[in-house]
Amino acid sequence: MEEFKRVRMEKLLELMKKLFVAAGIPEQDAIIAAEALIAADLRGIDSHGASRLPYYIGKLKNGTVNPKPTIKILNELPATALLDGDNGLGPVVAKQAMELAIAKANKVGAGLISVRRSNHFGIAAYYSMMALKQGMMGLVMTNSVSMVTPTFGAKGMLGTNPISFAVPAGKLHPFVLDMATSAVPLGKIEIALKNNKKIPAGWLYDSQGEFTEDPSMIVKGGNLAPLGGTRELGGHKGYGLAMMVDILSAILSDANYGAKQEGLMSMRKEPSNVGHFFMAVKVDGFRPVNEFGKTMDQALNSLKESPKAKGQDRIYIHGEPEFEFEDERRENGIPLHPMVILNLSNLAKEAGINPEEYL
Amino acid sequence: MEEFKRVRMEKLLELMKKLFVAAGIPEQDAIIAAEALIAADLRGIDSHGASRLPYYIGKLKNGTVNPKPTIKILNELPATALLDGDNGLGPVVAKQAMELAIAKANKVGAGLISVRRSNHFGIAAYYSMMALKQGMMGLVMTNSVSMVTPTFGAKGMLGTNPISFAVPAGKLHPFVLDMATSAVPLGKIEIALKNNKKIPAGWLYDSQGEFTEDPSMIVKGGNLAPLGGTRELGGHKGYGLAMMVDILSAILSDANYGAKQEGLMSMRKEPSNVGHFFMAVKVDGFRPVNEFGKTMDQALNSLKESPKAKGQDRIYIHGEPEFEFEDERRENGIPLHPMVILNLSNLAKEAGINPEEYL
Repeated sequence: MEEFKRVRMEKLLELMKKLFVAAGIPEQDAIIAAEALIAADLRGIDSHGASRLPYYIGKLKNGTVNPKPTIKILNELPATALLDGDNGLGPVVAKQAMELAIAKANKVGAGLISVRRSNHFGIAAYYSMMALKQGMMGLVMTNSVSMVTPTFGAKGMLGTNPISFAVPAGKLHPFVLDMATSAVPLGKIEIALKNNKKIPAGWLYDSQGEFTEDPSMIVKGGNLAPLGGTRELGGHKGYGLAMMVDILSAILSDANYGAKQEGLMSMRKEPSNVGHFFMAVKVDGFRPVNEFGKTMDQALNSLKESPKAKGQDRIYIHGEPEFEFEDERRENGIPLHPMVILNLSNLAKEAGINPEEYL
Repeated sequence: MEEFKRVRMEKLLELMKKLFVAAGIPEQDAIIAAEALIAADLRGIDSHGASRLPYYIGKLKNGTVNPKPTIKILNELPATALLDGDNGLGPVVAKQAMELAIAKANKVGAGLISVRRSNHFGIAAYYSMMALKQGMMGLVMTNSVSMVTPTFGAKGMLGTNPISFAVPAGKLHPFVLDMATSAVPLGKIEIALKNNKKIPAGWLYDSQGEFTEDPSMIVKGGNLAPLGGTRELGGHKGYGLAMMVDILSAILSDANYGAKQEGLMSMRKEPSNVGHFFMAVKVDGFRPVNEFGKTMDQALNSLKESPKAKGQDRIYIHGEPEFEFEDERRENGIPLHPMVILNLSNLAKEAGINPEEYL
């Protein structure tokens, strides 16, 4: 058993900020990027936080990402806009886009922003949840490296293309859905591969488009299944949802759609040209937000209190496990894998920072 | 093998219109309702067309649905509105709501409408596709009778809550996703039940929340699985999508959400108070619609031309099978099951209409 080390979130946040600054990011933007990444670590999405930092820094160091983008509105109507991210860091572009969606929703009730020329932005829920404090619902999508097959296909033509939908409740935690539109995200395959374990049929296709229980197929021409898996069990729906995300994020914005999207881990020096989609909807445009919150609480409680399947004692609301992770990790620190510690230490040393002050 | 009878779509449309008029619906609204139902029959969604007419008529005859609703905007911002359907026929309310979404999108780029006090509206794609002719994308959702369990649950707490997303292409057919957020819609269980066939594990839970291959469990306390099936294969995502639909359609509008929704086939005399959600997005607000259409064609063609899984020779785009059904059925007539013919004939006779003129 490898030993995880707990690191205080304030320390990790500060280190990540400094590493971004050392890579040429202006301080205000470095804070934005570090906060977006640490949100993943806090919420238990370990694959999307500090562990991804080396890729972000690598793309800055080799000039693939623009550290000082001029983010521009290319086209605009009162409720919509097309944004050019100027190949900036994903979180910097994404935060600005969601702020624009919220500003539009404040004026006309809803704001929809499609973004071209951006990069990997971390977890979608970080941006959808920005709407909550404003009494709004947030819907966020992004396309990503193509590794999901269409139904009856044998090649990765779409990304795991996540959808996050955040909705304010009353006294309860908000509803926060954040899901890949594939059956599982890449991280689950990687974990099985690292632990040398079989995976359930339904996650991964081999290069012939047949289900495999061997996670190593992911590096041997295999591809992820869309949510639902086979046609019989509804895989064409996951494929359709992945297309919806690709259309709103990348085709509407003229970014790299479908198999053109190589994503964060690509070694290419060309910009990723990732596409995102952001929507904010003002609840007050429909019902007073406090009344809406009461109905949300009733709806969520009725789910939690409904009969359980044999052997189960709890029904979860989307976002609940993540809020519990966050409470625990704010208290006790963020557990980092030794490899993550090593990578961060190396990045720190290269930047002339003493890692022992932080890790 | 029961023999299906082909009926010309013009005849069937006219008969359905007359039956609606005979049940007290004003002629203009009767045309709207008949056109919405026949769209399902044309597109091969046989469970949502003429076969459902007896339920619609039954609810009019027993006073559960209001034949002459006063549809009202209760709350409005430039991009959003809350609509009260006044317990009118679903298609009549839904068409007006989608028209309002389109009018708003024409003015400010996007229109989002949440609707309370409506009824079953047929297929969601009928309304999402209204956006296409305007160079818009349409997104339509509705809640429906609760028969889908949350993950780890054993009671139907959510409807099959469909999502339809329609997007214009260039020379190709538009992209038209129309999917229940359950693994399968109810119709698939009904067909297996009628044919006395087993169903795949992954569609239906028994009353204990365990998968069953026995379709008769649907009438013995069983419930549908959300898209994805088990937690391991992503069922919590289907559950989350069903919640998203319920929130936008029924909680945002204060309609009957979750387990309160009894739907079309309920014998209750109280109104169903179904909630819907409609969104129209003007493509031109982002990119010129003709350029967008070219990119759509390229994206769709790249999917169709991508490598096939072993034993497969075609990758489908969402909506393609339905456009092919429609071409064939417009040419050769709509195949109706003898039971549907019988039901329509009986309704016709009750209304003083000679069924032989139409069927």
